[in-house]
Amino acid sequence: MASYEIFELGNVALQKGSTIPNAKLAFKTMGTLNEAKDNVVVCPTWFTGYIDDVPPIFIGKGRAIDPDKHFIVIPALFGMGESSSPSNTPAPQEFVRFPHVTYYDNVSFQHRLLTEKFGITEILLVASWSMGGTQAYQWAAQYPDMVKAIAPVACSAKTAVYNELFLKSIRKAMVSDPAYKGGYYGDVPPLSGMRVMAQIYAGWGMSEEFYRKEVFRAFGHDTLDDFLVDFWEAYFAARDANNLISQIWTWLHGDISAQPAYGGDIAKALAAIKAKAIVLPSATDQYFPPVDSEAEVAAMKNAELRVIPSILGHFAPFNPDDQKFIDDAINDLLNG
Amino acid sequence: MASYEIFELGNVALQKGSTIPNAKLAFKTMGTLNEAKDNVVVCPTWFTGYIDDVPPIFIGKGRAIDPDKHFIVIPALFGMGESSSPSNTPAPQEFVRFPHVTYYDNVSFQHRLLTEKFGITEILLVASWSMGGTQAYQWAAQYPDMVKAIAPVACSAKTAVYNELFLKSIRKAMVSDPAYKGGYYGDVPPLSGMRVMAQIYAGWGMSEEFYRKEVFRAFGHDTLDDFLVDFWEAYFAARDANNLISQIWTWLHGDISAQPAYGGDIAKALAAIKAKAIVLPSATDQYFPPVDSEAEVAAMKNAELRVIPSILGHFAPFNPDDQKFIDDAINDLLNG
Repeated sequence: MASYEIFELGNVALQKGSTIPNAKLAFKTMGTLNEAKDNVVVCPTWFTGYIDDVPPIFIGKGRAIDPDKHFIVIPALFGMGESSSPSNTPAPQEFVRFPHVTYYDNVSFQHRLLTEKFGITEILLVASWSMGGTQAYQWAAQYPDMVKAIAPVACSAKTAVYNELFLKSIRKAMVSDPAYKGGYYGDVPPLSGMRVMAQIYAGWGMSEEFYRKEVFRAFGHDTLDDFLVDFWEAYFAARDANNLISQIWTWLHGDISAQPAYGGDIAKALAAIKAKAIVLPSATDQYFPPVDSEAEVAAMKNAELRVIPSILGHFAPFNPDDQKFIDDAINDLLNG
Repeated sequence: MASYEIFELGNVALQKGSTIPNAKLAFKTMGTLNEAKDNVVVCPTWFTGYIDDVPPIFIGKGRAIDPDKHFIVIPALFGMGESSSPSNTPAPQEFVRFPHVTYYDNVSFQHRLLTEKFGITEILLVASWSMGGTQAYQWAAQYPDMVKAIAPVACSAKTAVYNELFLKSIRKAMVSDPAYKGGYYGDVPPLSGMRVMAQIYAGWGMSEEFYRKEVFRAFGHDTLDDFLVDFWEAYFAARDANNLISQIWTWLHGDISAQPAYGGDIAKALAAIKAKAIVLPSATDQYFPPVDSEAEVAAMKNAELRVIPSILGHFAPFNPDDQKFIDDAINDLLNG
C-alpha cells in the first residue's frame, strides 16, 4: 500500500514543450489544515529522495516543523517514480522519452495541488534540502505573494557551472555503460555505470575533512571501500537510472529566473522574492558552495545567510547537530 | 627518434615482489654535469606525464632550474610508456600483468642511474609536481644524506584517504567499460570509460572558483562542454589505460615510510629528511589539500610551507603566475 496520495493533474503542458497526459503529482500530508488555512508548510522532495525520506530530516513532534502545529505537504519532485516519471509513464513517453520537466513545472503543479485540492492561498514556509531547497527558491520567485518564508538548505537558485560539471560526470557514468542500452535496459539496470556514479558521488557528496577524519566509521563503515560499496553503491543501485537522469536534467536547468516574469534575469528574480529567507548552505558543500549562497542572499531583500558549520559536505542535514542548526533557523523564521 | 635515453637496469626485484627482466629507466638530461658533480637537479615525471612535459613547467634558461647552471636529470616514472610499463613490456608481464611498482622502486632505479651512470653522490635539488613531487619526498626519505633540497609541489608524502577515493573512482571508470576487456583491449581502447574518467578528473583537477569564474575561457574553451571534450577527454584519450592504471596503483600506495628504515612510521620518515624543503601545495588543490602539506611540514625538521595562491587547483603549475611563485621558492632553496 502506497504511503502517499496522488493528485491527478490531467494533461499538463510543460514549460519546455510537450504535454504529459494524465500527469500525476504524488504527495503526502502530515498534521491538520487549520480553519484559517494559515499553518501550511511545504517540504518538497530532492534528487534520489522519496516522500518518506523527508520527515526524518525536517519534520517531527517538538521540532521546528511539527505536525501538531503545521499542515505539512510533501510533494514529490517529478522523475523519482512517485510523481510522473520515466519509470511509471506509458508509451510513447516511457523511459528516455519522458519529457523534460523544469522546477517551474514542478512548482506549478504543487501550486495547483495546494489551491485546487486544499484551497490554500498562503504558505507559512517552504523548507527543504538540495533539489528540494531549490524548489523553496522557485516557490518564492514564482508565487512571491503566497510564500511567507523559505529555508533553502544546501542548494542554489540557479545551477552553477561547477555543479553542472558534477552532474554531467555522473550522468555520463550511467549512459556510458553499454548495459544502459539507450534507456531500454528493462529489468537489467546499468549497474556497472551506476557504481561508477556512486564513487563519483562519494567524492563530491562529503568533504575532504570527512574522509581525512574517516567519519564514515561513525556511520558504521570500517574502511573507505566498505563505505563506497555498502553505502554509496547500494544507495544508487536501488534507484532507477532513467529516473535519475530525468531529475539530473531538471537540476541542470535549475534557474528561478527562467520564467516569463524575469526573462532569465537572476538578480531580478532574487530581488522579487518577498518571503523572509534564511539560506543555509553547508560550509563544506562541494557542489552548492556557500560562496554561491552568499551572492544569492546579497541579491535578496529579506534574506539572511547562515552557513551550517558541517564537515558532512552536502549531506549536513543527515547529521543530528547540523539538523538542529537548521531547525533553529526554521524556528527563527516561523517565530521571528 | 626518441627524445630520451634508456638506462638498462637489468633484472630488477621489486619491493612488493616479482622481478622485471631487462627493466628500462627512460631519462633525459639537460645542461652539463660540472667537475665537482655538485650541480645536479632531479625533476621526475608525473601521472600521465612524459619526459618532455617536464621542462615547460620547471626548467628554462634564466629560470630557477636552468640548464646553463644545472645538470638536470628527468627520469620517467615507471608505467607511462617511456620507462618499463604495461604498454611496452613483453609477456608474461604485458598489460595488466605488469607488476606493481612503488615509489620506493622508482627512486631506487633513479639512484642507480645517477650513481652508476654519472657517478653522482650529491643532489642539489629534487623538484617536481604531483606524483613527481612525491618522488622528491621519496628521494629525501630514501637517501637523506644525498639530497640537499626538495621542492615538492602539489603532492603528499603519503596518499590520503580522500585522494584514494578520487583515484579509485577514475580507475573504476576505466575498468568498468566492457571495452577494457580485462586489460586486453589491444588497439581498441576503452574510450567510453576514459571519457568518464576525464569528466571526473575535470571536477577534481581544477577548483570550484576556476569553474565559477569560467577561467577555462582563458585557455581557449568557450563553454564547459568544450573544455570537457576538447581538453579533458582528448587528453586522456591519448593515454594508455593500462599504463594509467599501473601509475594509479603506484600513487595509491604512495607512502615514504613504507621502507625498511621507517617501517610505516610516517612521522619518523618525515623527521628523517635532512634536505631543506619548501613544500608547495596549491591553495585550491582538491586531492592534495594544503592541510595535509601543513601536517607534513610540521613533522619535518627543515621545512617551510608555501601555499600557492592559485585558483587552478591541482594544475597551478600550468599557470604562469603560479609558476613564478614556484620558481621563487626554488631560487630561495638553491640560493638561500
